[in-house]
Amino acid sequence: MAIGLCDFICCRQALGTFRITYLYTTMKSEPEKKGTPINNFGKFGLIEKITSRAEIRNKSTLSGIGDDSAVIENGNDLSLVTTDLLLEGIHFNLVYTPLRHLGYKAVIRAISDIYAMNGKPGQVLVGLGVSTKFSAEQVDELYDGIYTACKNYNVDLAGGDITSSLTGLTISVTAVGSAGKGSLTGRKGAGANDLICVTGNFGASFMGLRILERERRLFEKDKTLKPDFAGFEYLIERQLKPEFPSAVIDALKNTSIIPSAMIDVSDGLASDLMHICRQSATGCRIFYEKIPVDLETGKAAEEFGIDPVTAALNGGEDYELLFTVRLEDHEKIKAIPGVSVIGHMTQASQGCCLINENGAQIELKAQGWEKA
Amino acid sequence: MAIGLCDFICCRQALGTFRITYLYTTMKSEPEKKGTPINNFGKFGLIEKITSRAEIRNKSTLSGIGDDSAVIENGNDLSLVTTDLLLEGIHFNLVYTPLRHLGYKAVIRAISDIYAMNGKPGQVLVGLGVSTKFSAEQVDELYDGIYTACKNYNVDLAGGDITSSLTGLTISVTAVGSAGKGSLTGRKGAGANDLICVTGNFGASFMGLRILERERRLFEKDKTLKPDFAGFEYLIERQLKPEFPSAVIDALKNTSIIPSAMIDVSDGLASDLMHICRQSATGCRIFYEKIPVDLETGKAAEEFGIDPVTAALNGGEDYELLFTVRLEDHEKIKAIPGVSVIGHMTQASQGCCLINENGAQIELKAQGWEKA
Repeated sequence: MAIGLCDFICCRQALGTFRITYLYTTMKSEPEKKGTPINNFGKFGLIEKITSRAEIRNKSTLSGIGDDSAVIENGNDLSLVTTDLLLEGIHFNLVYTPLRHLGYKAVIRAISDIYAMNGKPGQVLVGLGVSTKFSAEQVDELYDGIYTACKNYNVDLAGGDITSSLTGLTISVTAVGSAGKGSLTGRKGAGANDLICVTGNFGASFMGLRILERERRLFEKDKTLKPDFAGFEYLIERQLKPEFPSAVIDALKNTSIIPSAMIDVSDGLASDLMHICRQSATGCRIFYEKIPVDLETGKAAEEFGIDPVTAALNGGEDYELLFTVRLEDHEKIKAIPGVSVIGHMTQASQGCCLINENGAQIELKAQGWEKA
Repeated sequence: MAIGLCDFICCRQALGTFRITYLYTTMKSEPEKKGTPINNFGKFGLIEKITSRAEIRNKSTLSGIGDDSAVIENGNDLSLVTTDLLLEGIHFNLVYTPLRHLGYKAVIRAISDIYAMNGKPGQVLVGLGVSTKFSAEQVDELYDGIYTACKNYNVDLAGGDITSSLTGLTISVTAVGSAGKGSLTGRKGAGANDLICVTGNFGASFMGLRILERERRLFEKDKTLKPDFAGFEYLIERQLKPEFPSAVIDALKNTSIIPSAMIDVSDGLASDLMHICRQSATGCRIFYEKIPVDLETGKAAEEFGIDPVTAALNGGEDYELLFTVRLEDHEKIKAIPGVSVIGHMTQASQGCCLINENGAQIELKAQGWEKA
């Protein structure tokens, strides 16, 4: 529907006083294109612009915007809360996304932000906006995925809402978890010389999306075509039904490692590493040949003419852990399965860089608004 | 965009096993209209259908779906978490909704569910889906309203996300709060003979919406028209920038009243009262002449040819409190400003009814899916 931002009711000091004073002016059915395009800011710039005005009034609010989850004090323990929004056409395309997978992924995305604080998720709340084009059975399928993820990660669906929607399928997932006061890990604590560690491998989800989009475009030209994913099943799975390496969180606890900083990789390895660097006031050096990339990712990248490490650094939606540990934890870290050391933190003045195959130093770049 | 629910990727035992097995079938660009229309269930029927499958795995999940907030144990205290979704075209029309007001109302809606458990909100997290049609200044306006509500109700904006949107403005607000173990109030505890109490008055927001919609339709026919709200300022304010009677929560605490059941009135007084009756396994009797209706609401209802009590019972979006107390608390309740007793609970066998001006008994009816 058309957006009608207007001065239909223009409010003078509307919110500064208890009573609203209405000035009745003219109604406008189309918005005036005035002001600064949000694209000028980039996603993170816009968030920073808005949240720089936040004031904290409650002692229980220990950490607000700028980490993966909000941290709220509760006696001896810490509560973690995070919320995530998935919009049709931005975060998923129903042409190739089965609803079960979508429900599963929606839960993974949200609990991933609790794990990323070295926390343990306990509950999710799901808000669903659904149009009458969907049948009750289709809504059930979506919840099948939600319930299956809840079961696999031992969390409870503890609330939510369903509302009708005119504007596509909308899913909001709030995840609630807890962390010990001594083990909470944010983005701020990394220091120079800390080791940069990651779980799993990178770029698979991104290449899976590229393949799904390629097949969709072919299908749109010729509806008799059957999509061809042979040899790329792992990539498709990583895109449509990702898992989170929660076992690594347990292993860190069992080996008494408290990372100095941690984040889940959703925006892209480079972008998320730079979040840690910015908030910890450090630089970083990572090594091209150390970045874990699956064979299928490499094969797909070759088909698309993309450097696989570029896909790994900038693809996003990996739902892997990126964390830093002190140098003295090196031996302990090596003993945890599925964790790779890809580089180390440096002084901020040394910048954020990738050392390529030839030993050349390349500056890491963050991404813009276009990636949600 | 077109919804393309499809079997592009049809997954056999997709979520039952660790590894997905893909069966590559044909893609469909339009969904097959198969299965049961969601309208058949109604909103609450659909929620019940879905949530009846919920299993609770964590001891900390004390109360899940079915109350205003999820209740999570945290040592000696209880955490309350609730999430609310606002969608363009369903919950608001930007033709007559200033963005500041929308931000303010979004916060009120969410914290209202925390208060409704006899809790105290402490934090909100906001997820925003916004298209590039909006300017950065317009996003700022929305956050002006969010921050002003946070200030007025002493809560902190503690997190959230911003994402681009193709499908209209989407706002999800998660509210977090706390309640004492002894004072938490759900929907279940009401007993026969308990007094039914409400704050403020009802139907004002609904009549405000009717007036806004009337003026919008007139404007669409003749763009030179100026909307006429004279005499109905209060109704417009109730619709666009509602307040929550948080002082009553404090007064209950100060007079040591713990309600037997409580809910915030968002779906409509009749519907929300019937939620309490159903979950408490009681009936109710409320009295036509006791239902508080503002003079402006009466005047507007007359103009629209609606019975004002019908507007009050079924309008919704009142953001008032509805609660029940034991008979012995009658004197204490009378002393709290802004609270009215409108009837009493009965045995379930007596049903839910309204006693009209002539003493006749009319069965109360709940509402359907169409109201979000």
